[in-house]
Amino acid sequence: MEYSNETICQVIKYPARGEWAQLVERATKDVSELFGTVQSVFDAVRTQGDAAVRQYEKLFDKVNLSDLSVSEEEITAARQLISDDLKRAIVVAREHIETFHAAQRFEGKKIETAPGVICWQKAVPIERVGLYIPGGTAPLFSTVLMLAVPARIAGCKEIVLCSPPNREGKIHPAILFAAEVAGVHRIYKIGGIQAIAAMAYGTESVPKVYKIFGPGNQYVTAAKQLVSLKEVAIDMPAGPSEVEVIADSSANPEFIAADFLSQAEHGVDSQAVLVTTDESLVEPVLKALAEQLERLPRKEITEKALEHSRIIVFKTRDEVMEFTNMYAPEHLIIQTTDYAELAARVQNAGSVFLGAYTPESAGDYASGTNHTLPTNGYAHAYSGVNLDSFIKKITFQEISPEGIRNLGDTIRIMAANEQLEAHRNAVTVRLNSL
Amino acid sequence: MEYSNETICQVIKYPARGEWAQLVERATKDVSELFGTVQSVFDAVRTQGDAAVRQYEKLFDKVNLSDLSVSEEEITAARQLISDDLKRAIVVAREHIETFHAAQRFEGKKIETAPGVICWQKAVPIERVGLYIPGGTAPLFSTVLMLAVPARIAGCKEIVLCSPPNREGKIHPAILFAAEVAGVHRIYKIGGIQAIAAMAYGTESVPKVYKIFGPGNQYVTAAKQLVSLKEVAIDMPAGPSEVEVIADSSANPEFIAADFLSQAEHGVDSQAVLVTTDESLVEPVLKALAEQLERLPRKEITEKALEHSRIIVFKTRDEVMEFTNMYAPEHLIIQTTDYAELAARVQNAGSVFLGAYTPESAGDYASGTNHTLPTNGYAHAYSGVNLDSFIKKITFQEISPEGIRNLGDTIRIMAANEQLEAHRNAVTVRLNSL
Repeated sequence: MEYSNETICQVIKYPARGEWAQLVERATKDVSELFGTVQSVFDAVRTQGDAAVRQYEKLFDKVNLSDLSVSEEEITAARQLISDDLKRAIVVAREHIETFHAAQRFEGKKIETAPGVICWQKAVPIERVGLYIPGGTAPLFSTVLMLAVPARIAGCKEIVLCSPPNREGKIHPAILFAAEVAGVHRIYKIGGIQAIAAMAYGTESVPKVYKIFGPGNQYVTAAKQLVSLKEVAIDMPAGPSEVEVIADSSANPEFIAADFLSQAEHGVDSQAVLVTTDESLVEPVLKALAEQLERLPRKEITEKALEHSRIIVFKTRDEVMEFTNMYAPEHLIIQTTDYAELAARVQNAGSVFLGAYTPESAGDYASGTNHTLPTNGYAHAYSGVNLDSFIKKITFQEISPEGIRNLGDTIRIMAANEQLEAHRNAVTVRLNSL
Repeated sequence: MEYSNETICQVIKYPARGEWAQLVERATKDVSELFGTVQSVFDAVRTQGDAAVRQYEKLFDKVNLSDLSVSEEEITAARQLISDDLKRAIVVAREHIETFHAAQRFEGKKIETAPGVICWQKAVPIERVGLYIPGGTAPLFSTVLMLAVPARIAGCKEIVLCSPPNREGKIHPAILFAAEVAGVHRIYKIGGIQAIAAMAYGTESVPKVYKIFGPGNQYVTAAKQLVSLKEVAIDMPAGPSEVEVIADSSANPEFIAADFLSQAEHGVDSQAVLVTTDESLVEPVLKALAEQLERLPRKEITEKALEHSRIIVFKTRDEVMEFTNMYAPEHLIIQTTDYAELAARVQNAGSVFLGAYTPESAGDYASGTNHTLPTNGYAHAYSGVNLDSFIKKITFQEISPEGIRNLGDTIRIMAANEQLEAHRNAVTVRLNSL
């Protein structure tokens, strides 16, 4: 492996296969050491409800809240506090997200598996879902749309949103506007572990939900992990965001650099990887990265993320695709002349962006696809959030007397061999009655 | 709440709404106290591979294994060791399971969310999956079919099965036959925590998988929980099996009792609940239960399960359905004249059995639906195992120059408001190039 730590990011040329495992490894944080802290907050919220939530809000968010829920007045006021441009953009993005997710509606077919035996699946919404939206300086209103729009389409009866308030006890107006536009039913000024606890167990104000979605810091991640073991379902395990770009010499280095940096600016633990068979691409991309980086307000964060980001040159296209499926990136951008062919070979990825004019930003905000995606190699087994995430598929079956006559012996023999006599008898009593 | 602890099971008449919460509670076991034991086995298997697995097999299953994998010869021999009747039954059941799950194949549609913006989902199989089948006196070959058949239909490239061997180092021939018939690729003689560890981390013999399915004792449950937090996905959280029967005076008490007992015989922690508005049904059902119970070989287990099983009488049909959706049973049998109407009102259940001739046993073995279902109220948020369990839905998008012109402003405004300048720039460089 020819390795050079350039000033801006690692460049690795022609790694031997034995070195790939190390190249697909992520720097994951084990949050289980936080389980003790999480459990103590859970216990308090479980036993003391809103009172405990208020205490933690005072402790962690430095705010005294009389009312945990956001009022109608606050939502109305939010509309005046953000620009018309932003409002229009949020409404347009919502439409596209709606269009894409509405097309995912599931209709189960009735299947006659044997004469007189009819089986089917039916999609039923999860009654109550909880969305967590982190606080901080930048309001993640896009995530509100990504979670609440499909929840609404799925038919969830109660969509609850928790987000930490600022020291004035306010949630950012763009979050409130997006929540209103997306159809969130209740919004609470609660952050961190106490938000996950409130939604998992319910309090006087906050209804108990059955599934919790959304990103968060390591405390939120630990809290979601812990509740997922017993109390409620969660969207998916969390990890730092990442992008892989596959490019050939036809690609514009400016575009590649821009996509690379748009991933890196997310946080110091984000990772961007450029994979190519064209060694000639390396220099122009490094140059474009250096130029664009200078102009970024989040330059410091971005630089840190670039330290563990990589440009990797492989000998063949086959190696590129094998490596890609081993890495299983959250986002995969393919900017090559043969992108359609490579797309067909993607086995493991969260969301794939094809061609020169399909930046990850499009999917992050407005093309309609979801941006809540599996990180950390979880794309080997998990899908990103989609309409399925908000429903259960319940199976139904209806068997006629003819049907049970047809199935009877099969069931009786199998039950007897599993030594489950009562299972066999449930068929026998019916056959005897016919 | 009029409560009488009959000799055979609890009978509760007209419980007040405030008492329902207690009636839907399950006796759950917290397995987190086993995490220490589990972690030490994980560490050993992770660092010492097969050698550690062999040691644990010696320790827990009392067997010295030279080869962990089941040989072709053993599989061939298994065919001779089980009856033709059982072989036929397994093949018939496989066909029905295949028919039902093959109908669940997913084809993503290409959606133009805005002019020039094409988005779609594509189902891609999880490359390697692991199935755990418990040991014990009764061989759970039906579960082999329920997990391996959909895995094969989904297109999983490697289906790995682990099951503990007996003291002669053998796996029950019915399990081997079902595995062969269902299309399992590799079978290993490994049980308990070490099986979950081997599949989660991989060893010299056992390939690392990305998702683990199947039932097990509390150690297996704890092991699956622990790996699900970091290493691999799992099918769903585990809990004791349960059935709810809704019946009216049209129902045959013999059938109800048989269904009740077929649930109770699973294990001492199983639960059966009969819910009705017809008080007159109680006596005949109690009588049938007592009679049928006497004839069961697993009478002792069944009796213990009946101790926390219940007959509950409600005043109205609305109460019945409200209670049902609150309980969210794994299995729900509806034996009433208006079962179609009640079925339409089911919001939370794993699998629903409609009419007099549709016993749970049918779905347990041979109707075609899956029997790996959410217990413990998880049906509020989880589906049972189905074809989706073995695939990921990857999203793809392709945006034309026209498309990015249409989306450009929306993305740029949203990115700027989330203070993600590099996200905005990824669009700007493209718009500037047009």
